[in-house]
Amino acid sequence: MDAAEFRRRGKEMVDYVADYLENIEKRQVYPDVEPGYLRSLIPEEAPEEAESYEDVFKDIERVIMPGVTHWHSPYFYAYFPTANSFPAMLADMLCGAIGCIGFSWAASPACTELETVMLDWLGKMLKLPEDFLAGTEGRGGGVIQGTASEATLIALLAARSKIVKLIQADHPDRSETHIISKLVAYSSDQAHSSVERAGLIGGLRMKKIPTDNKFSVRGDALQKVLEEDRATGLIPFFFCATLGTTPSCAFDCVTELGPICNAEKIWMHIDAAYAGSAFICPEFRPLLNGIEFADSFNFNPHKWLLVNFDCSAISYVISHLISLQHWQIPLGRRFRSLKIWFVFRMYGLKGLQAYIRKHVGLAKEFESLVRADQRFEISADVVLGLVCFRLKGSNELNETLLKRINNARKIHLVPCQLAGKFVLRFAVCARTTESRHVQEPETDALTCHASKLFNVFNHIFILCFSHLNTHSTS
Amino acid sequence: MDAAEFRRRGKEMVDYVADYLENIEKRQVYPDVEPGYLRSLIPEEAPEEAESYEDVFKDIERVIMPGVTHWHSPYFYAYFPTANSFPAMLADMLCGAIGCIGFSWAASPACTELETVMLDWLGKMLKLPEDFLAGTEGRGGGVIQGTASEATLIALLAARSKIVKLIQADHPDRSETHIISKLVAYSSDQAHSSVERAGLIGGLRMKKIPTDNKFSVRGDALQKVLEEDRATGLIPFFFCATLGTTPSCAFDCVTELGPICNAEKIWMHIDAAYAGSAFICPEFRPLLNGIEFADSFNFNPHKWLLVNFDCSAISYVISHLISLQHWQIPLGRRFRSLKIWFVFRMYGLKGLQAYIRKHVGLAKEFESLVRADQRFEISADVVLGLVCFRLKGSNELNETLLKRINNARKIHLVPCQLAGKFVLRFAVCARTTESRHVQEPETDALTCHASKLFNVFNHIFILCFSHLNTHSTS
Repeated sequence: MDAAEFRRRGKEMVDYVADYLENIEKRQVYPDVEPGYLRSLIPEEAPEEAESYEDVFKDIERVIMPGVTHWHSPYFYAYFPTANSFPAMLADMLCGAIGCIGFSWAASPACTELETVMLDWLGKMLKLPEDFLAGTEGRGGGVIQGTASEATLIALLAARSKIVKLIQADHPDRSETHIISKLVAYSSDQAHSSVERAGLIGGLRMKKIPTDNKFSVRGDALQKVLEEDRATGLIPFFFCATLGTTPSCAFDCVTELGPICNAEKIWMHIDAAYAGSAFICPEFRPLLNGIEFADSFNFNPHKWLLVNFDCSAISYVISHLISLQHWQIPLGRRFRSLKIWFVFRMYGLKGLQAYIRKHVGLAKEFESLVRADQRFEISADVVLGLVCFRLKGSNELNETLLKRINNARKIHLVPCQLAGKFVLRFAVCARTTESRHVQEPETDALTCHASKLFNVFNHIFILCFSHLNTHSTS
Repeated sequence: MDAAEFRRRGKEMVDYVADYLENIEKRQVYPDVEPGYLRSLIPEEAPEEAESYEDVFKDIERVIMPGVTHWHSPYFYAYFPTANSFPAMLADMLCGAIGCIGFSWAASPACTELETVMLDWLGKMLKLPEDFLAGTEGRGGGVIQGTASEATLIALLAARSKIVKLIQADHPDRSETHIISKLVAYSSDQAHSSVERAGLIGGLRMKKIPTDNKFSVRGDALQKVLEEDRATGLIPFFFCATLGTTPSCAFDCVTELGPICNAEKIWMHIDAAYAGSAFICPEFRPLLNGIEFADSFNFNPHKWLLVNFDCSAISYVISHLISLQHWQIPLGRRFRSLKIWFVFRMYGLKGLQAYIRKHVGLAKEFESLVRADQRFEISADVVLGLVCFRLKGSNELNETLLKRINNARKIHLVPCQLAGKFVLRFAVCARTTESRHVQEPETDALTCHASKLFNVFNHIFILCFSHLNTHSTS
């Protein structure tokens, strides 16, 4: 394919992408395929001879789309959102064309420099303490990782290096292996599985701190475990606080935890993968109070800030590191900061704030629908865009409800476990109508979306009702 | 930005991308900017209000392009190639629109399944042993990683788990920490820095095996170190063989090393990040002989197989792992296999082979230019697309030559150290004329490129000559 054909095919693809996203709600949100469906639809080997683009293009609808879970459908309420915006897609096209591998400044100065400045933009939007900013001669700074999993691992490894160095300064005779064998890291019992995995990868002992009835780690809970562990000769060195847990969007109490970590010389990393984006709104910024005690902070603009995956931002307080290649696992890196630059400029801070607020508003609206129905209960505080709810009654009842909801294929939800209870998670995910709303605040996009929400609830209601009938007669 | 505006802006961007790549050789390959250049060109904070797309678009040329190292310029001969093709860019647009996060089968069945089948396509193209293929009930399979760094780390961690399990089966009393403290992993002294970093991340002892005069690890060299280490109570468990080293594209002798690793129960991982793509040509496939002894194999289609970054393929012999999320560091993943699918179908195996052969041919041509000039010497066997060369004489002389070459900004090269000598690396990188050549084999694209090569050599020649004069009179 030469440049001339790319001009033609690229424009067709732009239209295909626009069509896909404009009409996504007509597609079934969750696919009907069975595991292994795809292999039989395509040849077993790559073709010897080149095929025509028409043949490849045709196969998007024949082979791919039947097996896609449509994350950007307005009927998708599963997991947490993943971002998808037109400005980010335009930036990604440019990123692909430049196709540089920014593993050092010289490998592409613009790639390294825009990333540094964009992480400062992000830090300022979140009102991070000065220490987290690079500036022209700052003591901190940030870098884009692929995912929060990588960010947690990097923070854990940085903390491991720091504590080993610190201990060896006082005890030059103690080997690194010996010190590492005594280390212990902590996180909430609600923390994402990737935190535990980071410990496994780094070969480090990791313990979970029990949470209170709001699913939040409190200072006294950490203090208790620290004392027990110190008494047995272990060396606490790392605490991963979560702001906005995956199951219920709960917040660890970092204003209590931070001073303890600082006093005990424990690296405090804050994982705000989902919730972090909301901190750009003044009314949600207090949720980040205590950040001044943290050593590193991570959140995913690719979740809720309209920057397409992958774009996970980590900021550090003080870095002794010089080159970006010491800040991450992979050596090579794409020019991902272009996405942040395009999105932030095309939406503006106000547009991004409006987007967050709209999602939170929709969650609150769904919450009130649930509360208005006596058969349901809300399972955790609704703080941002996630509503955890269930039918009053057994786990079995709720498992059946979820199965019916997902089998009906009209909307898509995933569950969680909260204090032993099977709970349904309703996460506001789709941007589909959001961009229009941001751009044309006078339209009735919000109203449209709200009425969609009633449909969703109605759908759950019908499934629930038919189930309860079945249940009572069985 | 709504879908209607995206249709317009997307098509403009397609044209911008096509223009950029069609005219890339008119841009200076390496930028003139000084560190910190970008910060002063843009505001210190994200804008409050949304900006117009025109303003953002204008800034691509004002802010970004002056700081770009143009990896796809035909004057770029630095590092190793990174792929950039039109079919891959089209697939990436589709990937962005679908925007799924494939962390499990249910999260997007098509994403998981196409990746599995594409890794089988790759494996078959390379004629990997059956054990590396997933098939419908295979014992192996592959997964896409971001970079070879991640692949090496994953292989090392898999090997670490395996040896710990194996030892604990015989000695249930030995703790994991104790076992890990005795483990030792190996690689070539020519191995990429990421191999050493993988050891640091995993908290594992790592040693470098000395290479022979071809910069290749031989069986006896490994055997010697193994015996020494076993004698001191260490437990060898992992060897990372490199096929196509970064400095000189040397090949470890895996036909000698493999049987040793198998006999000693050492996990052999093969890192063929750059060279792996060439193994799709029957004439280069013998370089992979010995693969039958390996436990895992990695190469980067994003280097030399026309699939844009990031796309690093790792294949395993036997996997006890069920979900893709256990095969990698990050949990989330983009729909990267679309790029492989588009590229392999649009080029066909023959087109991809022609592309590899053309690059190797160009390297051979450059080699003969160097050999024809008595002042130069070739520093390592030219096997694929990399030529290591230098002026006969001191390191200082060659450092000055490289500085002059890069300061002249006409072409871009990077150096390496080989056996204490400062050496210039000439890597054939650009696809710029390749795609045309593949698509229209009757054109004179090759001739064009060859004449460009003479220009490059002429450029080096002139710089070298003026230097030698200066040198002899000083």
